[in-house]
Amino acid sequence: MSEFSAWDHQMMARALRLAERGAYTCKPNPMVGCVLSHDGQIVGEGFHQRAGEAHAEVHALRAAGGRAFGATAYVTLEPCAHTGRTGPCADALIAAGVSEVVAAMQDPFAEVAGKGFDKLRAAGIRVRVGLMEAQARQLNHGFLSRIERGRPWLRVKLACSLDGRTAMANGDSKWISGEASRLDVQHWRARAGAILTGAGTVLADDPSLTVRLGDDTAFVPPLRVVLDAGLATVARGKVREGDAPTLYVHVADAKPPRQMQAQTAVAAAEGGRFDLLAVLRLLAARGVNEVQVEAGSTLAGAFVEAGLADEILLYVAPVLLGDSARPLFSGLDIQQMMQRRHFRIVDSRVIGTDQRILLRPSHSS
Amino acid sequence: MSEFSAWDHQMMARALRLAERGAYTCKPNPMVGCVLSHDGQIVGEGFHQRAGEAHAEVHALRAAGGRAFGATAYVTLEPCAHTGRTGPCADALIAAGVSEVVAAMQDPFAEVAGKGFDKLRAAGIRVRVGLMEAQARQLNHGFLSRIERGRPWLRVKLACSLDGRTAMANGDSKWISGEASRLDVQHWRARAGAILTGAGTVLADDPSLTVRLGDDTAFVPPLRVVLDAGLATVARGKVREGDAPTLYVHVADAKPPRQMQAQTAVAAAEGGRFDLLAVLRLLAARGVNEVQVEAGSTLAGAFVEAGLADEILLYVAPVLLGDSARPLFSGLDIQQMMQRRHFRIVDSRVIGTDQRILLRPSHSS
Repeated sequence: MSEFSAWDHQMMARALRLAERGAYTCKPNPMVGCVLSHDGQIVGEGFHQRAGEAHAEVHALRAAGGRAFGATAYVTLEPCAHTGRTGPCADALIAAGVSEVVAAMQDPFAEVAGKGFDKLRAAGIRVRVGLMEAQARQLNHGFLSRIERGRPWLRVKLACSLDGRTAMANGDSKWISGEASRLDVQHWRARAGAILTGAGTVLADDPSLTVRLGDDTAFVPPLRVVLDAGLATVARGKVREGDAPTLYVHVADAKPPRQMQAQTAVAAAEGGRFDLLAVLRLLAARGVNEVQVEAGSTLAGAFVEAGLADEILLYVAPVLLGDSARPLFSGLDIQQMMQRRHFRIVDSRVIGTDQRILLRPSHSS
Repeated sequence: MSEFSAWDHQMMARALRLAERGAYTCKPNPMVGCVLSHDGQIVGEGFHQRAGEAHAEVHALRAAGGRAFGATAYVTLEPCAHTGRTGPCADALIAAGVSEVVAAMQDPFAEVAGKGFDKLRAAGIRVRVGLMEAQARQLNHGFLSRIERGRPWLRVKLACSLDGRTAMANGDSKWISGEASRLDVQHWRARAGAILTGAGTVLADDPSLTVRLGDDTAFVPPLRVVLDAGLATVARGKVREGDAPTLYVHVADAKPPRQMQAQTAVAAAEGGRFDLLAVLRLLAARGVNEVQVEAGSTLAGAFVEAGLADEILLYVAPVLLGDSARPLFSGLDIQQMMQRRHFRIVDSRVIGTDQRILLRPSHSS
């Protein structure tokens, strides 16, 4: 591995921040940022804004114009070598005369996977790879999960009380968390490719599961996914209203009602329970990088029990609901202390009146 | 109220920080700090270290020597005017020739309560009161609770999982929180006048309830209090070992075993349940400013349900124990969302692997 300078790190950190600006809009593509620097000066920069539109490198090259000649390009992901909906970025970098490309990581996507670097090197451009790779992988954990694991990154979002309760015994959960938390959730929704819930939540809470940011920030509306084995809820609910698409996942022998408007898909099930990995694979095949589960304790617990929860986004409200209220997760098979499930705190902060805690399984990176 | 300058604030902030250094040792007395300044220079400072020994003002005057003449004394609490175990501080300030006294608050203790200020004013010393009073009250919330409410400040300490569980169904609770949290708890114990638990916890966990700071920091060992209606646990347990005193609180008709070595006290009870306010009053009468409850969900819940929990110190470990595990608080009578108990987050931070959250009832100051 090459040595990277402080300037290299500074430029790549900037490229990573730029990349993140595409979080709400570039899906299902990865977020990518690019900074062109020459003689210690930034001569152009850009990020990938929207699938089907120009890549980060093209934006940066346009901004730099003739100053791209002899420059170093810092990119958070390997430049593409194939012609997709846009021309290959490797060709554009070569044409502009950049002298060096520093990339955070190779693109795991089979049509790229090193071919971009090969093309650049063949054109006499110096290529260095691996600068801030961990951060770059972190940035695109959704895209990488879809490409590398064949399933989306899964985030389970829950609001609970201090005593770990998500609803009263009667199902009432409005509102445990505060207004600031409910707004904060919108930003996590906006970056997701899908918001997933269960038929029980649709019947009990009638959520719309749309993104409401409260300003004119652009976003691609995430697919709303309802796990509804028997298609019992398709006729109703706010989950069918609004601009975002809705997908009902059902079992093979369920009969969609005639004149069904929403999309449907069949997933495997056993004993009335969905094969949750199959559901996730189905969503990956539809280009979903990141799924946010917003469901009750049964479905949320099922994802955790299946080992499919990559992270838990927990809003802990400073209230007590008492021991007859509903648990955080149902169905975890834990009898002994040694069977407890371990997580680690990735991020923790006060949001309005609540404590927000982001957790990942303790064995994860 | 007088106007206070930036310098005044700076000096009082320093006096408050000094005062806090007596937290583990000055009980049952209030924490007090004193800074003497003259012509924009600090000429002496001190804090009250130990009950029965010199007050903060005396330490500061000793440090200042002749430079106390004409100085301004910043004190976090009204200087005493009575002869207790030490001579009156007001007299010492007068004798040293200070020209002004700035105090954060009046001493609510009946034997002082303004008499210190009167004495100073009678000697021609300018007296200003009320600078950073909220902070000074906060500092001594334990002492003030005992004097003003006739009961100690009550902190309920609990360690729980993300799903709000304090033990497995079989009672096993070793260990939910991490090592850093368990060390952190020692500091909260050290400032308490008493650590209170129930007979059930003594039987199940056999805690020692001593302070183990892991270094040579001085502290006055808090009284260990076991609520044991029938004195069923007096014959055993680590809670009787070590240097700290132990008090068993029982009901009137319980018979202490012969040759009982530990202290005992009788508290009122009804239907087998202690009158918890009576228990707290009993402890206040013994000079306890601050009680830390370290008990199971039943006793902890009873204090919350009785409205006696002034703060909850919660260590949330990033683990799941499942919905058959024991709840955070038992016995809260909550059926509807509108009956939920509201708190507010006073402090929140990551301690080792855990999230520590300090909460107070939302209506409290």
